[in-house]
Amino acid sequence: MRKRVLSMKIVTISREFGSGGRELGKRLADALGVPCYDHEIIEMVAEKHGFDKNYVSHISEKDIRVFYPSTVGNRFMNPPTLQQPVKIVAAQHEIIRQGDCVIVGRCADVLCQDMRPLNMFVYADRLSKLRRCEDRADENEQISEKEIYRRMKQIDKERAAYRKLFTDEKWGRKEFYHLCINTSGKEIKALIPAVAAYVNAWFGMC
Amino acid sequence: MRKRVLSMKIVTISREFGSGGRELGKRLADALGVPCYDHEIIEMVAEKHGFDKNYVSHISEKDIRVFYPSTVGNRFMNPPTLQQPVKIVAAQHEIIRQGDCVIVGRCADVLCQDMRPLNMFVYADRLSKLRRCEDRADENEQISEKEIYRRMKQIDKERAAYRKLFTDEKWGRKEFYHLCINTSGKEIKALIPAVAAYVNAWFGMC
Repeated sequence: MRKRVLSMKIVTISREFGSGGRELGKRLADALGVPCYDHEIIEMVAEKHGFDKNYVSHISEKDIRVFYPSTVGNRFMNPPTLQQPVKIVAAQHEIIRQGDCVIVGRCADVLCQDMRPLNMFVYADRLSKLRRCEDRADENEQISEKEIYRRMKQIDKERAAYRKLFTDEKWGRKEFYHLCINTSGKEIKALIPAVAAYVNAWFGMC
Repeated sequence: MRKRVLSMKIVTISREFGSGGRELGKRLADALGVPCYDHEIIEMVAEKHGFDKNYVSHISEKDIRVFYPSTVGNRFMNPPTLQQPVKIVAAQHEIIRQGDCVIVGRCADVLCQDMRPLNMFVYADRLSKLRRCEDRADENEQISEKEIYRRMKQIDKERAAYRKLFTDEKWGRKEFYHLCINTSGKEIKALIPAVAAYVNAWFGMC
């Protein structure tokens, strides 16, 4: 069993909002021929356990503490009883453990540590992130630059806070990642063959 | 002239002591078919200007402030007269500007900013760095783990301080680099084809 776990190729992608990390994850998964879990995992868990998607989404990347009785405190990783939020995190974990995959977000770099994943962090400068957000926004959506910057800050703050629930390692600190990719001014698509080659080389040596 | 500068492919490698950054630079340069400047640049500058190698080496990665009259203070980037340390930094700059290359250290990421280089940072965990230092040490050299850790800390501190002379950007902060590679437990050689492919893809989009 241990051998199987060690031979699995799991790539986790943590990313700044607007950096193109999700696109990089999807394209990388395609290049590697493995599934990519992002929103899909939310739908899979919600469907399997009969939860509401929005509820699962909230548990998956925001905050699970509020769902716990205060007596559990910080010991939620070993709660006295299995409650809904833990069931959801466990169900995600179960899906990830089924085979090689790319996972975007979900704090997977921490939750799957025992499976020795390759952890990437995708980031970019503020202007590049702004441009990406503008490009992917709905044409009918009127949103100011100021509002985009506010959302960027807010979402990254939530991601950092969610990570803080599982580890003292600071979100985005390069030491916790194996490869940090700055996508500023770059087209993600063109970088993929090299990133996929890096992943294969990295696992070839595990 | 500007066009020529923009079309040049310059890769700079900043690295933690013991991370294998120098090896990565040499191998990457070979894979790209371009020169790698590390110690070589010291020898070239020393020979051309008749300086002592140790003197040039000190200027290249440690501290140039001590060579300046106190009246120059922090305005050394525009010194009133060209003195030896500035001549040495300028001579290095001149060599780098001659064509595509990989440069290890020398604060080249900052000094060559106008040439839009691809800046990499190579790092690793403490144990991996210790193992690399032990592997490359002379067989007759008796050096304790404690001493290696002390040197690691000291040399990285000097590199950070040297960088501080040219920019307020903190040494090792991922935001200033385009690709950060964690070499912990990895064989550099096997990563090179993918890193070279990344470099080519990155410049293909410049």
